[in-house]
Amino acid sequence: MMKALLAALAMAALILPLRAETVASVASPGKVLSVSISIDGDGRPTYSVSRQGKPVIAESRLGFLLTDAPKLERNLTLASSEVTPHDETWEQPWGEWRFIRNSYNELRLHLKEKIAPGRKLDIVFRVYDDGVGFRYEFPDQAALKNVHIGEELTEFAVADPAEAWWEVGGEWNRYEQLYQHTRLDQVSQAHTPLTVKTDKGLYIAFHEAALVDYAGMWLRRVDGQRLKSVLSPSSQHAAKVTRLAPFNTPWRTMIIADSAPALYMSHLELNLNEPNALGDVKWVKPYKYVGIWWSMHLGLETWGSGPHHGATTENTKRYIDFAAANGFKEVLVEGWNYSWDDDWFANGHELSYTKPYPDFDIKEVAAYAKSKGVKIIGHHETFGKIDNYEAQLPAALDLLASLGYDSIKTGYVADAGGLRVKGPDDKLYYEYHDGQASSVHHLKVVTEAAKRHIAVVDHEPIKDTGLRRTYPNWVSREGARGQEYNAWGNPPNPPNHESLLFFTRMLAGPFDFTPGALSLTGKGGQKIQNTIAHQLADYIVIYSPVEMACDLPENYAKYAAAFQFIKDVPTDWQDTQVLAGEPGEYVALARKDRKSNNWYLGAVGDNSKRSLTVKLDFLDKKHHWVAETYLDGKDADWDLNPHAIDIAKRDVKPGETLTLNLARGGGAAIRFVAK
Amino acid sequence: MMKALLAALAMAALILPLRAETVASVASPGKVLSVSISIDGDGRPTYSVSRQGKPVIAESRLGFLLTDAPKLERNLTLASSEVTPHDETWEQPWGEWRFIRNSYNELRLHLKEKIAPGRKLDIVFRVYDDGVGFRYEFPDQAALKNVHIGEELTEFAVADPAEAWWEVGGEWNRYEQLYQHTRLDQVSQAHTPLTVKTDKGLYIAFHEAALVDYAGMWLRRVDGQRLKSVLSPSSQHAAKVTRLAPFNTPWRTMIIADSAPALYMSHLELNLNEPNALGDVKWVKPYKYVGIWWSMHLGLETWGSGPHHGATTENTKRYIDFAAANGFKEVLVEGWNYSWDDDWFANGHELSYTKPYPDFDIKEVAAYAKSKGVKIIGHHETFGKIDNYEAQLPAALDLLASLGYDSIKTGYVADAGGLRVKGPDDKLYYEYHDGQASSVHHLKVVTEAAKRHIAVVDHEPIKDTGLRRTYPNWVSREGARGQEYNAWGNPPNPPNHESLLFFTRMLAGPFDFTPGALSLTGKGGQKIQNTIAHQLADYIVIYSPVEMACDLPENYAKYAAAFQFIKDVPTDWQDTQVLAGEPGEYVALARKDRKSNNWYLGAVGDNSKRSLTVKLDFLDKKHHWVAETYLDGKDADWDLNPHAIDIAKRDVKPGETLTLNLARGGGAAIRFVAK
Repeated sequence: MMKALLAALAMAALILPLRAETVASVASPGKVLSVSISIDGDGRPTYSVSRQGKPVIAESRLGFLLTDAPKLERNLTLASSEVTPHDETWEQPWGEWRFIRNSYNELRLHLKEKIAPGRKLDIVFRVYDDGVGFRYEFPDQAALKNVHIGEELTEFAVADPAEAWWEVGGEWNRYEQLYQHTRLDQVSQAHTPLTVKTDKGLYIAFHEAALVDYAGMWLRRVDGQRLKSVLSPSSQHAAKVTRLAPFNTPWRTMIIADSAPALYMSHLELNLNEPNALGDVKWVKPYKYVGIWWSMHLGLETWGSGPHHGATTENTKRYIDFAAANGFKEVLVEGWNYSWDDDWFANGHELSYTKPYPDFDIKEVAAYAKSKGVKIIGHHETFGKIDNYEAQLPAALDLLASLGYDSIKTGYVADAGGLRVKGPDDKLYYEYHDGQASSVHHLKVVTEAAKRHIAVVDHEPIKDTGLRRTYPNWVSREGARGQEYNAWGNPPNPPNHESLLFFTRMLAGPFDFTPGALSLTGKGGQKIQNTIAHQLADYIVIYSPVEMACDLPENYAKYAAAFQFIKDVPTDWQDTQVLAGEPGEYVALARKDRKSNNWYLGAVGDNSKRSLTVKLDFLDKKHHWVAETYLDGKDADWDLNPHAIDIAKRDVKPGETLTLNLARGGGAAIRFVAK
Repeated sequence: MMKALLAALAMAALILPLRAETVASVASPGKVLSVSISIDGDGRPTYSVSRQGKPVIAESRLGFLLTDAPKLERNLTLASSEVTPHDETWEQPWGEWRFIRNSYNELRLHLKEKIAPGRKLDIVFRVYDDGVGFRYEFPDQAALKNVHIGEELTEFAVADPAEAWWEVGGEWNRYEQLYQHTRLDQVSQAHTPLTVKTDKGLYIAFHEAALVDYAGMWLRRVDGQRLKSVLSPSSQHAAKVTRLAPFNTPWRTMIIADSAPALYMSHLELNLNEPNALGDVKWVKPYKYVGIWWSMHLGLETWGSGPHHGATTENTKRYIDFAAANGFKEVLVEGWNYSWDDDWFANGHELSYTKPYPDFDIKEVAAYAKSKGVKIIGHHETFGKIDNYEAQLPAALDLLASLGYDSIKTGYVADAGGLRVKGPDDKLYYEYHDGQASSVHHLKVVTEAAKRHIAVVDHEPIKDTGLRRTYPNWVSREGARGQEYNAWGNPPNPPNHESLLFFTRMLAGPFDFTPGALSLTGKGGQKIQNTIAHQLADYIVIYSPVEMACDLPENYAKYAAAFQFIKDVPTDWQDTQVLAGEPGEYVALARKDRKSNNWYLGAVGDNSKRSLTVKLDFLDKKHHWVAETYLDGKDADWDLNPHAIDIAKRDVKPGETLTLNLARGGGAAIRFVAK
């Protein structure tokens, strides 16, 4: 009684943190990054990441809550592990780079529960010199066949104090909020990509790759610098993810670099996706397009029927003529189908994807387009009524294919928890844009479209996780705050919008931003906070294989000299080099046309005047180079003199240093022609 | 074509924020606080709160996501509203105050959806001079009968920049983390109560009242100063809350005051609970107790069987003798029942609540206790295996009742997502401690116990939301980081732990903190970061109607002079007055014994020396007063000289000013005896 015992008690094991032991580790091919795995005395695995020997991600937990089984997070032991090197180079059918090197060392952990029922879980890390990806793999096993994931417990404990650029996650899931710039310890819950810069100058971008049949991941800050996954909910199941083993989670990704430009130069996102699953995809063609669209946003025409209906046969022919005359390959027509006339949110379920408005003769339009060498982009706004859209999907796509369409733009304008889907029980459920049900729906549309050689661009979509590698017909998304906010946004996009997007959202993939509003004027005369050169630079800065020239034809007539850059600029690239940049301040980059030797430079800044010097090292010495420059005029200023632009042509030399004077809200666009 | 239209377009209604109109408002009885309700052009209701005309809570949204129906958040109109005054005074059967005034103005809003299916939702605000509570009421209606709440969208937008004292919510749901002190814009996701102090000096404590058959609310910061409800998940339903209308949500509460002491003086929490539902509750008796408990935490005895088993007949008799000799009414015995011998987390389901260990003769112990005028506190550790506990609950309680027990302490030592419950489908699910299933379970235990006139204290419980008013046998909880962490916590509780808890957790209700560790020594000699006077002061500072003297009998023999205060102090009060305090810095308060005219003062500080002056205004002039003072000795210091205490007796006068010199980790305890 009351005598001191030397024997360790069970209590101690439950409460006192036991020292974690390192059980496995792996370094990147160039020994820049390394990942270390520990398991503590309770059998809890953690990972940590270091760069050149210094901690980047401190010990961070791994595991799952399951709704109908004990959590899979402790009592784990490492049964075995393997390290495998990998090095290949693959070719993108279209993209920012033609060739992508994929060089990493893979560490595969086979974890097993020490106690009954002895469940198994594999975790696979792929460690690159510029980043880390890891995913969980649920093996085929009797002890865990039907997997019901209540929450994923993955942590990302940033080792050093940092600042962050982020968008609120889980709140309004159109990804169309403005990004915030705060200290990392002021992040609440963020969408990915989330970009941080430590006070030591290291940049880390968190995201995920290959989000397939799984819920999208938000990052919630627990406390301090520790982020943790929160999966987007399901409205059909208590589990956020319901899967049958074997299956893999998406990759949890961190690009880690010592400069902001190096973040964008990483190919981690694409490399962690599976190769092209569609075979020959020559039918997926990058293009530029115009469309019946900006006029609606300005309030000049309507999506719905009536005297100002935009999508009429006559008006579409006018746009076809304009496209043909100016080298645009496609024309977007929004508002062509029943029925946009009531409360969209309430009545979207009545939308028909096969019944045009009477003033839109779909066959006549198609024949006219064909005669002019132009294609129509089909438009499928769902208003989030996925049940209605899926029911009509085969017929809707067949109709477009029969008319020669090779591209659709879909839309999901519904708020958080507002995607209506039909469950297997035929009941209707209201899902998040980034839940498992949404991930399944999107791939259904993409693969159905692929069968008909149709490319997909979606608006208010699930986030981009690099699936364009596997499904190259998923060409782009309007999945961030785009130009439309310059028409009616309150506020409109700020001057540094694109220089912030470049180092955050653009790490995920293409964005159908719809640049080219050369009038610089939104609805009711609202000022766009850009110079005209900035709008041109967006064609280089905001990558998309399909790029719109969004403005009205009469505005292009008015700004014909600047419009020339839009006519010239390609949308498919051989190479991309980021020359300089800081998130939300400025970025300058150069892209090489895939079909010629020409290079294009784009630079955008923020709400201050800025002088940037860039070296033309990217120009080869084999050619003579002529630069066609579209630069902010001397007194250019988004507020006071937005249309001031200096357009000139001069010879330049490889290696030459160029000074770019960016106005407030300014930009620079340059075409380097190889002679 | 392309002509400007003057007609407003549907687009504008969707995108441009429309001006909100004030549709209803109500002020508190003393016109201190007022609440204003607006509905914007999209039919979105918001509320805001002001104090003496200045904004406290800016426009904050209201509403719900439903999993199987369109969200209930917009397209709403105010059908009607009523304002009703209320003023009553009611008596607590036990508590910090005997009489509670409940004076508020109620604003009832009848909202109705403008579009089909025309669902109805009532929102009721009760506005006090020191706080606001509001709840949603789902009326009986055909259009919304089975309510499946995916998320509650309630916001709390704090108008001014502020600092915050908070505990991470949703992460590890034992509520046993240390509280943090950060800027409000560094809060991630918090449990309630969450206390903030604006830079203008206003204090606001957010919490909820009457959490019945609903999910507990976490507060997630969205951005800036805007907090938003996140309901604890369900593992059985996609909906976090599944209810049949009509029903009400818990009250969302804000105590609003211009001083920290005034937060604690508010009765908002109790007033928003329903009156006593149990009838005559004279059988619920506040008490002090000792127990077989600290010895296990020190590693001197074991919960499990074996040579060092604590809960033996012999040892229990020793504690009964000690209790009887020193005026303690009850003895807690942990580890009396099968089976604590394996991995608790894994094997808790084998626990029996009716089968004592062979060395614990439950009948002999009960008879012995009765002979000494002492009662045994039953102990039911579930290890989170609620299915097992509920299956045995009636028999387990019957056994205790038959033996004359009038109190049980339950326990739920399981991590987040670890409460195992049996669904109506007989399958097992793993739930959060604060989800709807847990709220139902806890009330089941409390009401089952009430039938047998047994009081309940729970460890690792769902949070306290004032239900002791309705169920006065739910006397206390060990629902925060208690003294046990001073035995083995890493770190142990910091010196300012109680002065922080007082203005956060203690706003929720009683806490079975188990004070009285006069040895000031934890396991393996770990120092408790308190002086001995601080441990005494905890009996006043940390209110519970059942208070333990947790230390070993031999330690009380060693510190007999200080122990006198523990023997003297009551646990049921006529009145409480908070004299001074700031969260996490210090607090001084006085409580008046319910059974005599004596007053008791307690004060605790933080990790610095501090001199406090308090006026003895609370002493009435009808009596002659003798103060028995237990004050930090001259060189007292938790680290260097923790046992230095000045114990003295002297006459004091009402209105006299007393200076209390608190040591580092120090405290002061005073008994004012009315002669």
